Amino acid sequence: MKYDLIIVGNELLNGKIQDLNTHYLAGKLYERGDELRKVHIIGDDENLFFEALNAAWAKSDVVITTGGLGPTQDDLTKAILARYFDKPILFCDEAFQVTKKQYGRGGRKYNREKIDYHNIPQDFRVVYNPIGYAPGLSFKQDHKSLYATPGVPTEFQEMLRAEIFPRLKSTQRHFTKHVIIKTWKIAEAKIFHQLCPDLWQQLADFGEVSSLPHLMGVDIGIKLVESDSSVLAQKEQAILNLIQVSPLKDFIWHIGPEKMEEVIIQEARAKKLTLGFAESCTGGLLASKITDISGSSSVFWGSVVSYANQVKIKSLQVKESTLKEFGAVSAETAKEMAIGARSHLGVDIAVTTTGIAGPGGATASKPVGTVGIGVSSSKGDSSDVYYYQGSRKSLKEKFAQAALIILLEEIRKI
Amino acid sequence: MKYDLIIVGNELLNGKIQDLNTHYLAGKLYERGDELRKVHIIGDDENLFFEALNAAWAKSDVVITTGGLGPTQDDLTKAILARYFDKPILFCDEAFQVTKKQYGRGGRKYNREKIDYHNIPQDFRVVYNPIGYAPGLSFKQDHKSLYATPGVPTEFQEMLRAEIFPRLKSTQRHFTKHVIIKTWKIAEAKIFHQLCPDLWQQLADFGEVSSLPHLMGVDIGIKLVESDSSVLAQKEQAILNLIQVSPLKDFIWHIGPEKMEEVIIQEARAKKLTLGFAESCTGGLLASKITDISGSSSVFWGSVVSYANQVKIKSLQVKESTLKEFGAVSAETAKEMAIGARSHLGVDIAVTTTGIAGPGGATASKPVGTVGIGVSSSKGDSSDVYYYQGSRKSLKEKFAQAALIILLEEIRKI
Repeated sequence: MKYDLIIVGNELLNGKIQDLNTHYLAGKLYERGDELRKVHIIGDDENLFFEALNAAWAKSDVVITTGGLGPTQDDLTKAILARYFDKPILFCDEAFQVTKKQYGRGGRKYNREKIDYHNIPQDFRVVYNPIGYAPGLSFKQDHKSLYATPGVPTEFQEMLRAEIFPRLKSTQRHFTKHVIIKTWKIAEAKIFHQLCPDLWQQLADFGEVSSLPHLMGVDIGIKLVESDSSVLAQKEQAILNLIQVSPLKDFIWHIGPEKMEEVIIQEARAKKLTLGFAESCTGGLLASKITDISGSSSVFWGSVVSYANQVKIKSLQVKESTLKEFGAVSAETAKEMAIGARSHLGVDIAVTTTGIAGPGGATASKPVGTVGIGVSSSKGDSSDVYYYQGSRKSLKEKFAQAALIILLEEIRKI
Repeated sequence: MKYDLIIVGNELLNGKIQDLNTHYLAGKLYERGDELRKVHIIGDDENLFFEALNAAWAKSDVVITTGGLGPTQDDLTKAILARYFDKPILFCDEAFQVTKKQYGRGGRKYNREKIDYHNIPQDFRVVYNPIGYAPGLSFKQDHKSLYATPGVPTEFQEMLRAEIFPRLKSTQRHFTKHVIIKTWKIAEAKIFHQLCPDLWQQLADFGEVSSLPHLMGVDIGIKLVESDSSVLAQKEQAILNLIQVSPLKDFIWHIGPEKMEEVIIQEARAKKLTLGFAESCTGGLLASKITDISGSSSVFWGSVVSYANQVKIKSLQVKESTLKEFGAVSAETAKEMAIGARSHLGVDIAVTTTGIAGPGGATASKPVGTVGIGVSSSKGDSSDVYYYQGSRKSLKEKFAQAALIILLEEIRKI
């Protein structure tokens, strides 16, 4: 089934908030074997809404709109849908009961004099909102469906999960599998034009090939679609065999959809290693990435976010003389932080970051983007200084990803 | 000037990656006084690209495309633009020189036999890529401009900042100001239907009103546009006067566009207070949010991410008996963590989190979403247990935001 998503809200187009709904819906539809044809992001504007509805309703089986369902005057979705499908807005007892239930759940009373969630376009139905107060709307015509959902990501996700997906049969008649080959330390052009110029075509014999370069390396994907699951498994094995004899094999750090954080946790758990960090410039981001993964508590013990030098000295036993002689951003400090963190946290491997995320703090010899990364384990203590470019937030991200690479390499040494 | 953004890439529509380019462009255009009319997110598909180009080129002054410029076979943008504008693809010496320069910068040699960045559609020009290897493209016709940029967010952002925005004069003829009133502890419907039912209309007399509910509360925005800057200032003052006598004033925590993290740093700096955390369930996210803000190092000293109980005991002096009797997720542990963190980090205020982000770890009396938050300062030590709903990542976010609210309230007590 094809889906269009229409995201409505001035706050998305003036940079106030980041759209999170596309990514969620895209991932869920992909799992179901359905297709997200197009996403339209528009402001609170009737003409743009009509234009998007025209394209979406003509081309897709399911149209989902998000936003504009709340109680304030910029919430126009209901009125626009009524006009687009030429339906009057009428009192609906089901809508009234659902709304009362939603309010009652939060211990609040629904005041129908002030809010009009109980009036909806004729032939539409309400969709229960499992965590918010504004109900969604649904409409069916000519074997097509439209769902209007709240824009708040948690409400959008819950309404999809609990109410909408169960009503929409997935049309998947095939088995699909995305084989993902994760590489590092080699540029995309170098892979396909120098190292293995025939690889793309060889992989394309199995299915649709894609290549996604990002901070950690290049992910190569092959989408397999088969009506027979054993053929699918054979093709997957054939791809793995092909890769094993390709010169690319030396640049592969993982085969599968897992993020590096997940691979780190899996491999540390298999080797019964405990992990910890000391973070200056990443300011907790490294620990937060690891703890985003469910099950991280089995291997991750903690991180000392030592933003101030006092904390580096007190918690991590970094020597004042090291800070004075080499500076906080140096290989020497990074190494002492690693030794100190490993001892203080009592973990098997400690990785540390100390750098300049900017915009302030640069010196002549240490520009913004300089980072010292240290590691301490039973295999020894080491550190180095690296240079990156970007804004403060993107540098924190790059520093954290560089530290994750070093952590994974260290786990593999043990 | 009106802009359309066309984002191309299968990886966005199958949930592999999160679009970050919309949010960046939207914020920058808003600052410039320009308008982002519509964002189209589509896969690597010629028909969808044509459809989006048709709508965008007809309705906007500037069309920006992202993605599909790389060296692999799914990079179709150049070929599609050539067909859409009916131009042959030809050798371009400027493109060749720019590409060589980009490769040389990374110490690499450009191989024109393997990669064809030097061939571009006739009448197009190249756009220098300040940090990547694939150059962008530009095209002008009928007072309209098109820019094709890389999809990688850092390359997209740098190319816009350094190359594209300087060539596009902002057409701003007016002074604009977005007055943002940030409220907490009250629901959106309650504000506009109960507490101050006339507020929306009163504010709408000044400019376009918007209301954005989110985890921290409700942000009410009024967009002022005036040709005379003194009239703008007068209107802003009139809004502030109106708000000061409105019952809403008790629910306002800030007036301005700043995030809560920024307000925390500003107010802590003004009061010369140092801040620290001990984080269990938020796993470093709280510290990462604070350190996202430039200048945070002036007040933020560090965080003890104490995921393992051993770290809670050793670094934070949480009593083993407390962990045994009340559990790690309890008001008692949260309070001991706060006292311990304040002492260990040597800060004026310590705030702590200990909770269950799930999906595992729940008990009969402590469901997923339970969080203990503690605070310790010269005003005393306190803690409480709160309950939220959501996925692991959204719970980490909610826990962190709840802790930020408590931190801001504590700063204001001192």
